[in-house]
Amino acid sequence: MDILKNAWYVAAWAHELRDDQPLARRLLDQPVVLFRDAHGVPHALADHCPHRFAPLHRGDLRDGTLGCPYHGLRFDGSGQCVHNPHGDGHVPAAARVRAYPLCERFGAVWIWMDERPPCTLDLPWFDFIDPQQCEVSYGYLQTQANYQLSADNLLDLSHFQFLHPSTLGSAAMAADSGRFEQNGETVWSRRDARGELLPPFVARGLGLPDGTLADRRIAVRWDPPCLLAIEVCVTPASSSMEYVSRSAHLLTPESATSTHYFYAVGLPKALGELARTMTAYAVTGLTQPFRDEDLPMLAAQQRAFDEAGDASPPAVLLPIDGGIVRARRVMERKLALEAAGQTRPHAP
Amino acid sequence: MDILKNAWYVAAWAHELRDDQPLARRLLDQPVVLFRDAHGVPHALADHCPHRFAPLHRGDLRDGTLGCPYHGLRFDGSGQCVHNPHGDGHVPAAARVRAYPLCERFGAVWIWMDERPPCTLDLPWFDFIDPQQCEVSYGYLQTQANYQLSADNLLDLSHFQFLHPSTLGSAAMAADSGRFEQNGETVWSRRDARGELLPPFVARGLGLPDGTLADRRIAVRWDPPCLLAIEVCVTPASSSMEYVSRSAHLLTPESATSTHYFYAVGLPKALGELARTMTAYAVTGLTQPFRDEDLPMLAAQQRAFDEAGDASPPAVLLPIDGGIVRARRVMERKLALEAAGQTRPHAP
Amino acid sequence: MDILKNAWYVAAWAHELRDDQPLARRLLDQPVVLFRDAHGVPHALADHCPHRFAPLHRGDLRDGTLGCPYHGLRFDGSGQCVHNPHGDGHVPAAARVRAYPLCERFGAVWIWMDERPPCTLDLPWFDFIDPQQCEVSYGYLQTQANYQLSADNLLDLSHFQFLHPSTLGSAAMAADSGRFEQNGETVWSRRDARGELLPPFVARGLGLPDGTLADRRIAVRWDPPCLLAIEVCVTPASSSMEYVSRSAHLLTPESATSTHYFYAVGLPKALGELARTMTAYAVTGLTQPFRDEDLPMLAAQQRAFDEAGDASPPAVLLPIDGGIVRARRVMERKLALEAAGQTRPHAP
Repeated sequence: MDILKNAWYVAAWAHELRDDQPLARRLLDQPVVLFRDAHGVPHALADHCPHRFAPLHRGDLRDGTLGCPYHGLRFDGSGQCVHNPHGDGHVPAAARVRAYPLCERFGAVWIWMDERPPCTLDLPWFDFIDPQQCEVSYGYLQTQANYQLSADNLLDLSHFQFLHPSTLGSAAMAADSGRFEQNGETVWSRRDARGELLPPFVARGLGLPDGTLADRRIAVRWDPPCLLAIEVCVTPASSSMEYVSRSAHLLTPESATSTHYFYAVGLPKALGELARTMTAYAVTGLTQPFRDEDLPMLAAQQRAFDEAGDASPPAVLLPIDGGIVRARRVMERKLALEAAGQTRPHAP
Repeated sequence: MDILKNAWYVAAWAHELRDDQPLARRLLDQPVVLFRDAHGVPHALADHCPHRFAPLHRGDLRDGTLGCPYHGLRFDGSGQCVHNPHGDGHVPAAARVRAYPLCERFGAVWIWMDERPPCTLDLPWFDFIDPQQCEVSYGYLQTQANYQLSADNLLDLSHFQFLHPSTLGSAAMAADSGRFEQNGETVWSRRDARGELLPPFVARGLGLPDGTLADRRIAVRWDPPCLLAIEVCVTPASSSMEYVSRSAHLLTPESATSTHYFYAVGLPKALGELARTMTAYAVTGLTQPFRDEDLPMLAAQQRAFDEAGDASPPAVLLPIDGGIVRARRVMERKLALEAAGQTRPHAP
Repeated sequence: MDILKNAWYVAAWAHELRDDQPLARRLLDQPVVLFRDAHGVPHALADHCPHRFAPLHRGDLRDGTLGCPYHGLRFDGSGQCVHNPHGDGHVPAAARVRAYPLCERFGAVWIWMDERPPCTLDLPWFDFIDPQQCEVSYGYLQTQANYQLSADNLLDLSHFQFLHPSTLGSAAMAADSGRFEQNGETVWSRRDARGELLPPFVARGLGLPDGTLADRRIAVRWDPPCLLAIEVCVTPASSSMEYVSRSAHLLTPESATSTHYFYAVGLPKALGELARTMTAYAVTGLTQPFRDEDLPMLAAQQRAFDEAGDASPPAVLLPIDGGIVRARRVMERKLALEAAGQTRPHAP
């Protein structure tokens, strides 16, 4: 499964980038070094010196320039060598490394790794993790699976009862078959439970007592390449109040078979200390099933797909796969356009 | 070295298969899941769900059906999906996994992995490990070598004195050059020692005192693909009684360069508790040189053959290789017939 | 980067070869077993028995013959099988392994692995590590990098201040730009510091007090394929005496991406106990930055070059690379001649 290059991806959470310590991360199968300059502006460079291919992330970061650990050439955030400590100090024109466009939004640093110029990053529905307006808690995991396979798992609400029986699943939620929609390149997967005995993890995350009976509606929004927002709305039977929890799930290919998985939960700052407590609880609570149940499953699937190769029969499709099928079709079309050099189709 | 598909192989010892816990094992380079149904009947399925390629061996086994751990589809022993817990429960016709024919004999579950229909499993000379009639002790090891290379080692009685000087070898046994015969596809390798001071492991295994002088005759029977029976007959100088020990050595390719090695020792049930003690002693005693001396040698040979590739000079043949040469020729002929699509030649 | 075969390489330090224990080492991507016979003469054989490819280095070494651990065939230093313990003891003509020409010089055993006959090993400038005349201390490390990349690092005096700031580098040494010369196939790289506050490691290595001001001149001599001699001359400001330290750095490809790195420091025997103490101090002192700073850098470079493949832009060259560029050109010419079958060009 090819990697779509013509897209913004999360390179790191904003708080991971520092001005005194570079961060090394493999993104879209390329080694990248990330840092901030003295003004806090984030920068991303190819992680090897053009002179002798030493890894720049092992160098020292000073005043917004990164020094090569091998021979001391210094590079600024544009990738230009700005200091050669040897001889007459002449800097050859070729002494520059590739710099990647970055964009800081929603508490994350986004990277553009395609050769073509970047489009605008415009994802207003992720405002709920904008740290200017919201209290946000952040999570990070790495999957040993392709980014599309990893996104499939998030778009698929039908596995909760089987893979996560003790945390996210319930019989009432399993009883619904789910609904799928597509608007342009956006895919929605929805599933509702009526009169559900809320799973304790869900109830506690909303500040509701154990044993609460409620209607629960889950809506997953997927946008290419693999940016997901999950909204859970709970209406307790004993009340007309609606409790809403929103989480963002942002996937970035590390390689063809591994993925950086950034996730976050946000609540309005107006909720004060409670927002901090509840988002932290939700991220901690999501991390356990993700790490202990989804990650091993994704790795096993990736190994099975790798092994099956092209000789394998196509996977059997079920009605529960409606979201995945739509998202995959959008990606196939985008990858085909990219391969054909037409990366900016007119919106339909 | 290709894997012969047109053959029965041991998939597991019979006691390894349970009706409450599936067993995962890679066989002939395919992932397989093995289990018993509620009637104790053994089943073997391809170890991935046809829906999303999840490993079925991580699922739950209930009433003879195996549930996929990801979305809860359930499969019976024929590989058919018999339950879809989602929506209207419709099961698509394609929702089935490959089931492999099995046969339970000699305390083992045998598997047939070729696409063509299985032949009859008829190996009466292994009756000595039939648990109906005999007391049997079982062993299992894994070699990091091709199955034919692993079988070579068992058919070769000339390495005992060099690789196993402290357990199986003796100067008297080394003095014999060995004899080889072939009847149809069966190959025999024999070696005798006259007036040998029995190695302590051999003497104790037969209940004889240390220091016993005896004649010892070893006969190895090999049948394709790599099923071996070893008979050791000992006649102490001080007696006319003959002590016989029989062991089975059954090899199954795990991959092109690794092998499941099943071995067992059997004695008539009539011997009662003594049979249990003696077969357990023999299996324990064989395990040590197999694991500590043969396995590292086989792994080193495999690495050397891998590295030498086709550019290497053919290995030098010695008269001691008479058994191996005959067995290899039988296998070459069978593999060539299989490649040509003629897998059932008339017996000569 | 190809491996030049038409050359002498160090296979081992002389003291590593014993007459009671064979030494296994991978050299030029071939498994080799090294040992001495009863007369102390060193021998090197391909490390697998021609019979069944067992690794000979696991066998027993007795009276200058090496016994195969699997079937007991014995080989002498010429690679000839001289004993078959089986049957009538006949030794087939093909029962021999390749023996490699060796030469013992400068406390090392040198090996010739090309098919063509060896040239004379004539490297008189390494007399300072001749154990007949000198007190010598020896070091050994393994780099996870190609042999030419490993040699580049030694020929490059400009990285000291950046990679080894606390041991070998100094501001005064960094201030010099270096000079490069080539005589025939020999390349020189030189760098001087005037009025330098000697780094403590350098001062102590010469028996000078901490805080010594001195002129320091470093000269690196490189000869193909990757044999380097480094001479450091120090003249303290307070004296007219010159202190000289000489080290040898001899590189042998283990594989295309790993290298045996043999290094040694020698002083005249006339210095007695002091020579022993000082050479041991120097080798210990060099080992720390080599192991902790150069080795990780070389491994990172190798990974980056591997990953960049041919698609990468050529590395940027700086004036400090003058030595490396000259040495690489010599090697390119020699490799091209070797590929063309002309390995003995007339000296220019």
